[in-house]
Amino acid sequence: MATTEPPVLYTCAGSRGLRATWAAEEAGVAIDLQLLPFPPRFKAPDYLEVNPLGTVPMLVDGAAHMTESCAIAHYLATKGADQSLVVAPNEMDYPAYLDFTYHADATITFPQTVYMRFALFEKDKGWGEAGEAYAKWFWKRLVKLEQRLETRDYLCADRFTVADICCGYALILAGRVGLDEGVPQSLRDYRDRLTAREGYRRAVAREAAGPAAI
Amino acid sequence: MATTEPPVLYTCAGSRGLRATWAAEEAGVAIDLQLLPFPPRFKAPDYLEVNPLGTVPMLVDGAAHMTESCAIAHYLATKGADQSLVVAPNEMDYPAYLDFTYHADATITFPQTVYMRFALFEKDKGWGEAGEAYAKWFWKRLVKLEQRLETRDYLCADRFTVADICCGYALILAGRVGLDEGVPQSLRDYRDRLTAREGYRRAVAREAAGPAAI
Repeated sequence: MATTEPPVLYTCAGSRGLRATWAAEEAGVAIDLQLLPFPPRFKAPDYLEVNPLGTVPMLVDGAAHMTESCAIAHYLATKGADQSLVVAPNEMDYPAYLDFTYHADATITFPQTVYMRFALFEKDKGWGEAGEAYAKWFWKRLVKLEQRLETRDYLCADRFTVADICCGYALILAGRVGLDEGVPQSLRDYRDRLTAREGYRRAVAREAAGPAAI
Repeated sequence: MATTEPPVLYTCAGSRGLRATWAAEEAGVAIDLQLLPFPPRFKAPDYLEVNPLGTVPMLVDGAAHMTESCAIAHYLATKGADQSLVVAPNEMDYPAYLDFTYHADATITFPQTVYMRFALFEKDKGWGEAGEAYAKWFWKRLVKLEQRLETRDYLCADRFTVADICCGYALILAGRVGLDEGVPQSLRDYRDRLTAREGYRRAVAREAAGPAAI
């Protein structure tokens, strides 16, 4: 008899792939979690045969190969029995849901990675100030989340959704890499609400079984 | 009688907002195109009252306010009579469609903006090499598009979709800012196929009525 294999998630603990692990836990979707040392393109070179980009996360689900953490989080959530994590096209907050799930990585995660590279990992190259410029760039872009959450506990549809997972991870990363200085208190409180969730704690515990990243 | 106003798209000609203008043209969706001088946060400071981020594009559709170009392109396409621009959840390429629409901005546009800032706009700051590092980073990440298009004319579902608009814009930008050196011939050919489309030409012509950007 044919069996349905769960999707395989390749990731490094604490990387953007945490969005996917977290979404799977919240949605109750089984995944085969494959934890890699960071950075995998140097420490697990065979991984390049699975994902030529060498990046994490990667989800393999049958013929589907996905490498964008926010896309994976949304996709895994659509496979769950509990669809409340996803905002459907017929809901009023569908445009906001789309917008925040894209905003999370393109606008408020990438600049942090530029900071991490130039101001932390490669600071001996003398580009620390260039990195700091992107820390400031990141802080300024937080105004969108800040205004949205002035009157809300969660970003969309009065409930916890994948938009919170996607944007929440950006704030979690900021705390870890020393960028909290420019994160408003209201967003730190929001982050506390998110990281207090059972689903988040289970995801972190699952990833803790693998080699640490970041 | 109440009338339905078309969505208002604030953008600068040739910016990432071209994804939205292009999607609207391909989908036959009416938009009220508001063209701003670049960068609007300095040259059109009143715009900050509409969009506190100061970024373009921004779509205002009733209560919905969106600022992510790929999210807007997808959203506008869902409003069209011709739904072929969107890949639906029940189609086999839905995971790929999600993945490429996120990949387009987070992975292959943002690094170009780091290059543009440090190697072009602010090169007097002495961070040109830091900018060049992100040009290389961008070129390496093109392997995903390149492999996907080895056996396909379009990224998803054997037809032109918003995924092509989103990723295509990243390649168009690369050509404009002098990053073609590391863009494989197959992706330049793909870009030629996209920019030959009537919908693309109409979008560029509409934006040409406003102040030029980039």
